[in-house]
Amino acid sequence: MSKALPTRSENYSEWYNELVKRADLAENSAVRGCMVIKPYGYSIWEKMQRALDDMFKETGHSNAYFPLFIPKSYLSKEASHVEGFAKECAVVTHYRLKNDPNGKGVIVDPDAKLEEELIVRPTSETVIWSTYKNWIQSYRDLPLLINQWANVVRWEMRTRLFLRTAEFLWQEGHTAHATSTEAVAETKQMLEIYAQFAEEWMAMPVVKGRKTENERFAGAEDTYCIEALMQDGKALQAGTSHFLGQNFATAFDVKFQDKDGKLEYVWGTSWGVSTRLMGALIMAHSDDNGLILPPKLAPIQVVIVPIYKNEEQLSQISDKVSEIVKDLKKLGISVKYDNNDAYKPGYKFAEYELKGVPVRLAMGARDLENGTVEVARRDTKTKETVSLDGIALHIQSLLDNIQESIYNKALAFKNENTFRADTFEEFNSILDTTGGFVLAHWDGTSETEEKIKEETKATIRCIPLDQKQENGTCIYSGKPSAGRVVFARAY
Amino acid sequence: MSKALPTRSENYSEWYNELVKRADLAENSAVRGCMVIKPYGYSIWEKMQRALDDMFKETGHSNAYFPLFIPKSYLSKEASHVEGFAKECAVVTHYRLKNDPNGKGVIVDPDAKLEEELIVRPTSETVIWSTYKNWIQSYRDLPLLINQWANVVRWEMRTRLFLRTAEFLWQEGHTAHATSTEAVAETKQMLEIYAQFAEEWMAMPVVKGRKTENERFAGAEDTYCIEALMQDGKALQAGTSHFLGQNFATAFDVKFQDKDGKLEYVWGTSWGVSTRLMGALIMAHSDDNGLILPPKLAPIQVVIVPIYKNEEQLSQISDKVSEIVKDLKKLGISVKYDNNDAYKPGYKFAEYELKGVPVRLAMGARDLENGTVEVARRDTKTKETVSLDGIALHIQSLLDNIQESIYNKALAFKNENTFRADTFEEFNSILDTTGGFVLAHWDGTSETEEKIKEETKATIRCIPLDQKQENGTCIYSGKPSAGRVVFARAY
Repeated sequence: MSKALPTRSENYSEWYNELVKRADLAENSAVRGCMVIKPYGYSIWEKMQRALDDMFKETGHSNAYFPLFIPKSYLSKEASHVEGFAKECAVVTHYRLKNDPNGKGVIVDPDAKLEEELIVRPTSETVIWSTYKNWIQSYRDLPLLINQWANVVRWEMRTRLFLRTAEFLWQEGHTAHATSTEAVAETKQMLEIYAQFAEEWMAMPVVKGRKTENERFAGAEDTYCIEALMQDGKALQAGTSHFLGQNFATAFDVKFQDKDGKLEYVWGTSWGVSTRLMGALIMAHSDDNGLILPPKLAPIQVVIVPIYKNEEQLSQISDKVSEIVKDLKKLGISVKYDNNDAYKPGYKFAEYELKGVPVRLAMGARDLENGTVEVARRDTKTKETVSLDGIALHIQSLLDNIQESIYNKALAFKNENTFRADTFEEFNSILDTTGGFVLAHWDGTSETEEKIKEETKATIRCIPLDQKQENGTCIYSGKPSAGRVVFARAY
Repeated sequence: MSKALPTRSENYSEWYNELVKRADLAENSAVRGCMVIKPYGYSIWEKMQRALDDMFKETGHSNAYFPLFIPKSYLSKEASHVEGFAKECAVVTHYRLKNDPNGKGVIVDPDAKLEEELIVRPTSETVIWSTYKNWIQSYRDLPLLINQWANVVRWEMRTRLFLRTAEFLWQEGHTAHATSTEAVAETKQMLEIYAQFAEEWMAMPVVKGRKTENERFAGAEDTYCIEALMQDGKALQAGTSHFLGQNFATAFDVKFQDKDGKLEYVWGTSWGVSTRLMGALIMAHSDDNGLILPPKLAPIQVVIVPIYKNEEQLSQISDKVSEIVKDLKKLGISVKYDNNDAYKPGYKFAEYELKGVPVRLAMGARDLENGTVEVARRDTKTKETVSLDGIALHIQSLLDNIQESIYNKALAFKNENTFRADTFEEFNSILDTTGGFVLAHWDGTSETEEKIKEETKATIRCIPLDQKQENGTCIYSGKPSAGRVVFARAY
């Protein structure tokens, strides 16, 4: 709290890094690329987990747990999968250390070499489908609707807290179905759940769409995604849902007997969101003073700070506050009364602003006299003096209001920063000024997509689900196109 | 479900292994020693997690997340810690695979060797205390009360589902304090929480005590534990809570400035329970027909099976059942109506018996006429016909009753199988006949403890907290002793 945050306009990237650390969300660990998620940050993640987990269960999914380690040979069984993941994985080769004969700590024991190396899971399709082989014999065993909350490791070279870390936490759903239609429906259903979660809980509007072949998950037939827009005009992929076709079933020989007794390969899906969502949450809403958290995900929704000159005043304020606290808790609102004497109110105000507590109440001598309390909103920084009469209900509706208002602000930002470009010049000019989502015609070839990426650093975020039929010409090649896709520079 | 379980008396060990698999709790994976926790098993673990997590939070702890990987050098910083864990750890040495030049899948890329090997955490004291160094400067930063839910890996050579697996899930609490007194109080508090959880949720009575020096956690000054007794007369350590003294603070140079400005090393604790509790839960209560689950941890508390001859009957039963289901859900009771036409009632009865569903309702034609339902208890296998009037409240109190009754049965078993031995002959005879907890005098030396272990395979489970002052002579050495300790053969 000693010095101000860098501002977003000065240095967006530094603003983000500093905010993550100073708001006690996460920090880098001694292990390259691995982060420590601090208690305050983790409590936001727990709220995300709970909300998502409830949604998964409501749609019939169960949780399970599969091994951290994947035999090296498994990874190779699906050709494009190994292509996608072999280049960045942590490999376990030994299972024991021993004392260094030179007396310097411990060394790897060369006698404890594994026969087959193990990969720390970068994602679990292979180990899960190898298990499903034993679980699925008949159409009666289908669908299998399973989710796992787990840590995964991808040895990324350039890492950033939450956005790209070597180890991250996530959930990965892996479902198995008797028909292609059912698997596609599941893929789309989970995309809708992610979109709903992003919008209703994170207050973050998203574009739903399909990835191009280039950007598909390694091993999928089709990848659906939600894409959000950050305040610097860059896109962030916030969740993906994959239709795996029969690829993993074929690779791991998972067949089922259908109602007519015929053996067929099983159809699969997988879908995931990760602690990356924390990065999205932070960047979507926060300002130069700190975090702005949607009330539904805020670990502390209301903080109450007493302003007093002496013990007697403090005691009177505390009496009033304890009633407010009781009433708020009854409504299921999380509230903290900060009567810590070691810090001044001004310091506390700045601290809770930094941490994004949605509503701050302050009570002083005049409030005691008048039966009022000062109510400050973190998102708009507006204050009002409110009667204690019915204060809890007032705050409840204020929290709803804030949730909606944060969403609307983000939605307005997204709308204002979604552009149409009809020429490559226009396209470049948008990317170099405001950034944002750029809707443009594309000829549908990987070649053009790659060239645009090379020249502009913009990628096709998705082919939007609500894509309108519109004949046009590709901004790069001039070839015909039947509809616009969403381009952006991205995290 | 094709053939019966092995019985406990025939082969206790096989009974356990088969039960774990057939009740869909867990199975071995393709990776040696790593298990797959299946959805039904995982849903029990989730209930355990939720209950424990609530208890941790009520006592002021927060969750956080620390890296999976520990630099090899960290492990060596605390001398006895590395002794305890170096011999059984998974070591990551490389961060990339590449295509085999001989065209056979992928091989480890020799150019991607890590400068320093990473250990997959067997426990996180080292990585957490290296982090605490940056978090703790002053007494104002203390206490630090943090818990982590995570997977850990210990490369055990002989593994058994839940009881001993290379990878397991657990929670590990790591707290830091300004004084030794406070840290000891925390250690004891967490032991009490574990005991309370075991007794109130798992319906499993435990002995609370301290470990001998030999059995202490590697790096602790003192280890407290809860020990439970399984039906085969073997003990199972169900949770441990360690007073770390200043050992890890010293190893990682974690000091704080006290109120007088003096720099001191921080005092620490750590405490954990794992998926091993699943093994304890299974072995404490289950019988030759399958699982017996205490209602508080049962994923399905009540199952309802219709018994019908035709569609019309089924439809009438379903109408009645839907009311029962609604009423049960209102009371927070989890209920499943199994109207799957593919299986006969008898099959379903056996299946839910195997899975330990505490209460089974069956409704047939006569029940329809009489306005009744058949209520069967899993634990006692008793049945009664009950009027539908007030059935939900009846079941609610029945569930409470079952929870208590399962506990009382386990308590009686523990009491009946807790013996006092005054000679080594008596001691051996108890171990070789009934097994159980044997209270005996011990001279307090590691030497005697080890000899007894060698000769009898029994270990000192703990020095019980409620140990009575009683002068006697060691059953092995004949030397004086001031109180009895708890011996048993153990898992």
